[in-house]
Amino acid sequence: MTTQLRNLINGEWVEATTEKFTPVINPGTQEVLAECPDSTPDDVKRAVNAASTAYVEWRQTPVLSRTRYLMTFKNLLEEHFEKISKLVVKEAGKTIDEARGEVRRGIESVEFAFSVPSLMTGFKVEDISSGIDETAECQPLGVFAMLAPFNFPFLVPMWFLPVAIACGNTMVVKPSPTTPLTMDYVFKLWEEVELPEGVVNLVHGGVDAANALMEHPDVKGVSFVGSSTVGKIIYEKSTKHGKRVQIQGGAKNYLAVMSDANLATAVPNIMGSFYGCAGQRCLAGSVVLAVGDIYESLKKELLTAARKLKVGYGLDDASQMGAIATQKSKERILGMIKKGIDEGAELLLDGRNLVVDGYETGNFIGPSIFDKVTPDMTLAQEEIFGPVMSIIHVPDFETAVTTINASNYGNAASIFTQKGGYAREFKYRVNAGNIGVNVGVAAATASFPFGGKNDSFFGDLHGQGPDSVRFYTDYKVVIERWV
Amino acid sequence: MTTQLRNLINGEWVEATTEKFTPVINPGTQEVLAECPDSTPDDVKRAVNAASTAYVEWRQTPVLSRTRYLMTFKNLLEEHFEKISKLVVKEAGKTIDEARGEVRRGIESVEFAFSVPSLMTGFKVEDISSGIDETAECQPLGVFAMLAPFNFPFLVPMWFLPVAIACGNTMVVKPSPTTPLTMDYVFKLWEEVELPEGVVNLVHGGVDAANALMEHPDVKGVSFVGSSTVGKIIYEKSTKHGKRVQIQGGAKNYLAVMSDANLATAVPNIMGSFYGCAGQRCLAGSVVLAVGDIYESLKKELLTAARKLKVGYGLDDASQMGAIATQKSKERILGMIKKGIDEGAELLLDGRNLVVDGYETGNFIGPSIFDKVTPDMTLAQEEIFGPVMSIIHVPDFETAVTTINASNYGNAASIFTQKGGYAREFKYRVNAGNIGVNVGVAAATASFPFGGKNDSFFGDLHGQGPDSVRFYTDYKVVIERWV
Amino acid sequence: MTTQLRNLINGEWVEATTEKFTPVINPGTQEVLAECPDSTPDDVKRAVNAASTAYVEWRQTPVLSRTRYLMTFKNLLEEHFEKISKLVVKEAGKTIDEARGEVRRGIESVEFAFSVPSLMTGFKVEDISSGIDETAECQPLGVFAMLAPFNFPFLVPMWFLPVAIACGNTMVVKPSPTTPLTMDYVFKLWEEVELPEGVVNLVHGGVDAANALMEHPDVKGVSFVGSSTVGKIIYEKSTKHGKRVQIQGGAKNYLAVMSDANLATAVPNIMGSFYGCAGQRCLAGSVVLAVGDIYESLKKELLTAARKLKVGYGLDDASQMGAIATQKSKERILGMIKKGIDEGAELLLDGRNLVVDGYETGNFIGPSIFDKVTPDMTLAQEEIFGPVMSIIHVPDFETAVTTINASNYGNAASIFTQKGGYAREFKYRVNAGNIGVNVGVAAATASFPFGGKNDSFFGDLHGQGPDSVRFYTDYKVVIERWV
Amino acid sequence: MTTQLRNLINGEWVEATTEKFTPVINPGTQEVLAECPDSTPDDVKRAVNAASTAYVEWRQTPVLSRTRYLMTFKNLLEEHFEKISKLVVKEAGKTIDEARGEVRRGIESVEFAFSVPSLMTGFKVEDISSGIDETAECQPLGVFAMLAPFNFPFLVPMWFLPVAIACGNTMVVKPSPTTPLTMDYVFKLWEEVELPEGVVNLVHGGVDAANALMEHPDVKGVSFVGSSTVGKIIYEKSTKHGKRVQIQGGAKNYLAVMSDANLATAVPNIMGSFYGCAGQRCLAGSVVLAVGDIYESLKKELLTAARKLKVGYGLDDASQMGAIATQKSKERILGMIKKGIDEGAELLLDGRNLVVDGYETGNFIGPSIFDKVTPDMTLAQEEIFGPVMSIIHVPDFETAVTTINASNYGNAASIFTQKGGYAREFKYRVNAGNIGVNVGVAAATASFPFGGKNDSFFGDLHGQGPDSVRFYTDYKVVIERWV
Repeated sequence: MTTQLRNLINGEWVEATTEKFTPVINPGTQEVLAECPDSTPDDVKRAVNAASTAYVEWRQTPVLSRTRYLMTFKNLLEEHFEKISKLVVKEAGKTIDEARGEVRRGIESVEFAFSVPSLMTGFKVEDISSGIDETAECQPLGVFAMLAPFNFPFLVPMWFLPVAIACGNTMVVKPSPTTPLTMDYVFKLWEEVELPEGVVNLVHGGVDAANALMEHPDVKGVSFVGSSTVGKIIYEKSTKHGKRVQIQGGAKNYLAVMSDANLATAVPNIMGSFYGCAGQRCLAGSVVLAVGDIYESLKKELLTAARKLKVGYGLDDASQMGAIATQKSKERILGMIKKGIDEGAELLLDGRNLVVDGYETGNFIGPSIFDKVTPDMTLAQEEIFGPVMSIIHVPDFETAVTTINASNYGNAASIFTQKGGYAREFKYRVNAGNIGVNVGVAAATASFPFGGKNDSFFGDLHGQGPDSVRFYTDYKVVIERWV
Repeated sequence: MTTQLRNLINGEWVEATTEKFTPVINPGTQEVLAECPDSTPDDVKRAVNAASTAYVEWRQTPVLSRTRYLMTFKNLLEEHFEKISKLVVKEAGKTIDEARGEVRRGIESVEFAFSVPSLMTGFKVEDISSGIDETAECQPLGVFAMLAPFNFPFLVPMWFLPVAIACGNTMVVKPSPTTPLTMDYVFKLWEEVELPEGVVNLVHGGVDAANALMEHPDVKGVSFVGSSTVGKIIYEKSTKHGKRVQIQGGAKNYLAVMSDANLATAVPNIMGSFYGCAGQRCLAGSVVLAVGDIYESLKKELLTAARKLKVGYGLDDASQMGAIATQKSKERILGMIKKGIDEGAELLLDGRNLVVDGYETGNFIGPSIFDKVTPDMTLAQEEIFGPVMSIIHVPDFETAVTTINASNYGNAASIFTQKGGYAREFKYRVNAGNIGVNVGVAAATASFPFGGKNDSFFGDLHGQGPDSVRFYTDYKVVIERWV
Repeated sequence: MTTQLRNLINGEWVEATTEKFTPVINPGTQEVLAECPDSTPDDVKRAVNAASTAYVEWRQTPVLSRTRYLMTFKNLLEEHFEKISKLVVKEAGKTIDEARGEVRRGIESVEFAFSVPSLMTGFKVEDISSGIDETAECQPLGVFAMLAPFNFPFLVPMWFLPVAIACGNTMVVKPSPTTPLTMDYVFKLWEEVELPEGVVNLVHGGVDAANALMEHPDVKGVSFVGSSTVGKIIYEKSTKHGKRVQIQGGAKNYLAVMSDANLATAVPNIMGSFYGCAGQRCLAGSVVLAVGDIYESLKKELLTAARKLKVGYGLDDASQMGAIATQKSKERILGMIKKGIDEGAELLLDGRNLVVDGYETGNFIGPSIFDKVTPDMTLAQEEIFGPVMSIIHVPDFETAVTTINASNYGNAASIFTQKGGYAREFKYRVNAGNIGVNVGVAAATASFPFGGKNDSFFGDLHGQGPDSVRFYTDYKVVIERWV
Repeated sequence: MTTQLRNLINGEWVEATTEKFTPVINPGTQEVLAECPDSTPDDVKRAVNAASTAYVEWRQTPVLSRTRYLMTFKNLLEEHFEKISKLVVKEAGKTIDEARGEVRRGIESVEFAFSVPSLMTGFKVEDISSGIDETAECQPLGVFAMLAPFNFPFLVPMWFLPVAIACGNTMVVKPSPTTPLTMDYVFKLWEEVELPEGVVNLVHGGVDAANALMEHPDVKGVSFVGSSTVGKIIYEKSTKHGKRVQIQGGAKNYLAVMSDANLATAVPNIMGSFYGCAGQRCLAGSVVLAVGDIYESLKKELLTAARKLKVGYGLDDASQMGAIATQKSKERILGMIKKGIDEGAELLLDGRNLVVDGYETGNFIGPSIFDKVTPDMTLAQEEIFGPVMSIIHVPDFETAVTTINASNYGNAASIFTQKGGYAREFKYRVNAGNIGVNVGVAAATASFPFGGKNDSFFGDLHGQGPDSVRFYTDYKVVIERWV
């Protein structure tokens, strides 16, 4: 019998009060890795209450002590680096190198939280009027909730949790029921850290658990990463319950390749952008804008490079691209490909029938490339979240910018060029939260805010960087006179 | 016939496309000062479109030039200081000195925006990985909406508008239909500033106009100040339309007076807190917590002081307290007083039957004081927004803090004491956004964030200070490699 | 008889206690404009004492009030804009447009000081250990001295004085005895501002006055702008007396023109850099590095453009380049040209014998260009501070960078290119404080720190921007426990 | 034969090129622990050159990688915590608990450097004029020197070294020849860290080595902690060679005890301040100001508490106060005590003849207390740096402040009171860099700047906190136009 995951509430591993479980499946092998419980509102209540109680003392724990727990945590993560990476491969399907990359990035987010003692500072002005001083105290708020997506089971919670607790808050994390194992493992490490009970809590589950978190009066704020559709609902629902919210949604990222681009470096970069994590990330490239006369040579080189990509099981070192996270996702992507063909795009490279030797049941799709895509096609407008590249040929820089800015999303966009002038205009004018210049995956590092534009982000304060400290703290203004 | 106000859209004064008008009434005299149009969604659309168009060039105008317009604006405000102050008296009912205070504070907010060139800065790290640089560009967003309350017709819009446009955004302001004249006058000054057309727009109106602003896709964010009830609706509705929002709601402010307090300075301070603006401000004191054995002497001194307060028409220099802004407000306050009596509180000082000579029709209520109030009474829980003081006798500091923290609101709270220890615990533990220590009206100055806790504030970034710059800008992360 | 300038000490214009005076001469006409006193150590003592006394109350004046004086000051500067500009022309010799540019920039520095209420903030962390709070109070220091150079009689003092006093300090300014009239005029405006007496003081003089300022125990810090030779002495001497110091010294600025540069925009830019203010500014170009095969065409275009420049009296609107500030400077520049010829450089354009009609006695030198300059020549190493361009032909980018970095100075350097890659490496590797990319005069705006490298700057905190606020304030750390 | 210490230069342990050695003596036992070489200018040159060479690549190493070396270093420090602590006891004479405290504080400084990726950021404004962007790049400078004092052989270098290298600089540390063993040990840990060679270098020595560091053209800046007398010389000398400098000098710290102070908590706090580290630290209390009528009871309690203090060998767990670091220091302190008696102060408690059983040769002095000290006595003016308390009786708060502010020093000052009003005035008006409120040792934590006033500090940027990042970096302004 497969393991049934439990929740970590107030320092204890407890069973969810539910009969409903979702199987956690290795997308490369279809092996059932565990059963993830669909925790009930009651489970959530217990977790929030624990966090609420823990908050009282945790807030009073000096910030240097709070971050020191995180240093111990980081050391444990380094020690368990390979184990965590392998878990990510198993439940999310990506390659081991991609998983290692994810874990490294996640650790960087833990490291960022070491700077909270320097960032979580109030400010003060003496004599705002004669003999009266004014201080903006920077204080934590209480309990926060984090709702994680399936594609980065380690990284995404690390964007939020370390900063949240370093700031003196307590937290309840709800991983995706598709990929809950990584966080499950990580929370076991928290036990070794000997963090006070209730400071971090893990609740497995789906919509019911999410709703219960949004509705609980003690939850002060919600951080969500996932699709724009769900994100919108959560944005509205959380605010209805008076909470602060930050929502990172979906994406449709354009990469513009200017005619002066250095293809030798651009092409491998573009490959990484489109096919890294099999396209299942919010920073993945989705459309190539071939600008002007680079179109033919670029197309040729992309095709050649994509054909060479070795798709395989993530734990096989030779694999360069892994599996699609779920059967359902795979079907959605296949549907999108079909739609592309139906709408008249030309499928230059067809990854639909790819079979991986020894992993015939795996959810694999090979790198796919559409040519002759136009801006009005579904391929150019909707998020695919799979290894599908669409090429649009545009005449000039101006059209490239206009095409990008017509998107409903605005997560990332890149330009490949040697000209400083194009780069400047691109970063100035393109309405996307993350801009790459000769960089295909414009991933903000941990000390920089990470967010998008349009439907790719709802709220104001982004995850990561100083924004995250501001999100997890509040200013209380004190006016003092002593006569 | 009274003047019908017009909207300022794209630099032109235009009539609203409506037949519905609200009379603007001087609450001290019942004189109808003007007719305020109930602008339609079409009017709003026109204003937002104008702002949207103006944004393109305004954003590219250097920030030093943008703030220089505000310096001219400030000079005009200084020149028209008395006229604006008098308008505030006429439409809002407060005394001329209170109005002058409001205008002075509002000008300070304009002055704060002069620092936007120093505050609106992106940040950069070289070599985030070898040869790759990362920048968080700090950029404006587009069109913003400001929904203002009736009680500070000049000050509240100034918290938002100057920073919004200094940051490169454009704006639509909708004043309260109860007190629209001040903004109407102020926007005439914008014409003298020769600000590019469409950068600031004025739309008069009520719920329909507000809704249209929240629904327009070009509006990037909404700032609202008003009651918590309306604020909640706006928070939910604006987020439903994907916008960033900040909501400053109602209040129920407690002032704790410790037994070691210096009554000679505390009492006048408390008077100002409760009866300034006739209690119609979100920082007004509402409940006095008399701690321990200071109760009797404090009560006596408060009563003596309150009795001496001269209520009168705002433009009469001798008046120390002015009118209630609307007849409807007056009725609500009278209802609250009645409820207080009904629930068993003792009305020590009854301001209900006060008549001001020469202004017999004015909406006046005299300073009122309830004794023997208990935390469960309506008087202790609901916002009154009028000149009514409730005294609760509590045994000790601990009870004082607990009582305050039981409130649904959390805008402001003050303590009067000589002990540093009480002050520290008070500001550390009391869950209110603004804390006064020997200060009855804990008003954050313009360079400090202004917000509350619980139902007194929804959102994360406050108005004023660095928060306001963050609210009116977005970070766009750029990752650059040049090979 | 010509006017003898007086000192402004403690709000009163008083005569210096000296018999020594320097004539202030209009370099375009040789007219004696005034006599500048060589103030004695006693005069300085009186000024510092006045500043010291004024400090006590000035420090306690709320920062908002302090900056409001500066707003009034700014309005007066705008009003007197043309008068000040003309004074600058008369005593410094530059053209009226250059003078207007200087005054505009100076006013921007005043405007920057409006942001001091937002920038002069202490910071605070609660619970650094249990129940103990820590605050870094940001406080002013006392009296500061500013020693100004002759070439920007208005602008340079404005880099320092407004921020110094906005931060709560008081100041003594000593202008250059060569160009003291502008500050003399400006300090008359301070009287209209009704700034409290003693907050700003003006002492005219030379070395003796400078020494007395450095030696006075009440002077907390010294800001100096001038030559590196004098700067070094002042750096050492001021520190000997325990003061904080910031020294902006001389320059030898290189402009590298890559072969892909757009000459149509680059050449006018280069002209402005070399011949603006007749080369008498620390950001003036001094050497053109013609990189690769652009050498011939660049040389030709520079020569053509330089020949067209109209040299003349500054108040003559047609003049594009003005006079050399002093006869002595002119001789020094002529000596440098002679040395250039002696060392084997080729003088393509010889400005030595230029005579301006109607201003035959003026200190004029026409635009001069040396070709075939090598890095070891005096022309390439020493500051000329005059309208002399040296062209060095270098084979490639790498040599350009190496050549620049071999200089003892490091004030500014520019590159002209279309390639983002060159720009990135240039700004990353070139050891100069101010880098221009397709910009010939890389002048930091008022909210950015302004300083150089090597012998171009001594100290750590630069003038302007947040650095200047840090220079004029000190952090005092407070650790509080209340038990 | 005792070990001769070697220098760590460019990753190798090399012998100094000298015949001169200083014995390193355990002040508790007189045991010679090692021989410290008096490194020559040649040794220094080699170290600086190594650092200079290492800088080229180190600067280009991403800041996240640089801080990660420090994380490894921190882990090693934790591992060797006890060993380092014992070394500190052996060479510096303090008690093991004090040593542990020192090591803990030093590790906190390493931890502070983890926040450098967030703090070492340039800033940027787009469109400073149309189409032109301006960036202040934040870059490292090159080689820095750190000159350490004898009293905190671990802690003081940790204030500087971690931040310096995290910012991308390289460093040469010169420990005190009196206590060089701790750093010697710590630098062995650097080897385990596998930091690139030459990034950190250790040179043992005295005045010659210090001079050579100040004179080397590649050294960009000098950080010094020690006496004011030496500090002044170093300030002047380093600036003469054009370097940036920060000097933390001596101290004469006053503790004012108000009549409302809580003696139960104040007295143990005062004991710690005066007798911790046997008074050999710049934050040690030196004079008690007994304000008003608390004088008699305070004196009595201090005397009682001081008498109970157990002086002994540092490694003996029972010891509460350790040895004087050197025989020379002991003699100086004894001289000061004699002078105190000669000048008429009353020696209430005489620690001069104290002998510690089993450690009869140790440099011990017992806690000493002078009463009836007056502000004009040497006891009240000169730094003693030993376990000697002087009590001055002052009538009121005002006199207390005046007395403190008359000192030539200004490192720290404390007040003991329950009144918020006294605390506010004290921190506002007392001219000391570190203020304690009911805290006897006002030690700034690692994220706060640490510096003094008057002769206690020379320079502007303090050690620790954001100041230290600013000291170890420079702003380079880039103005970019792309046309």
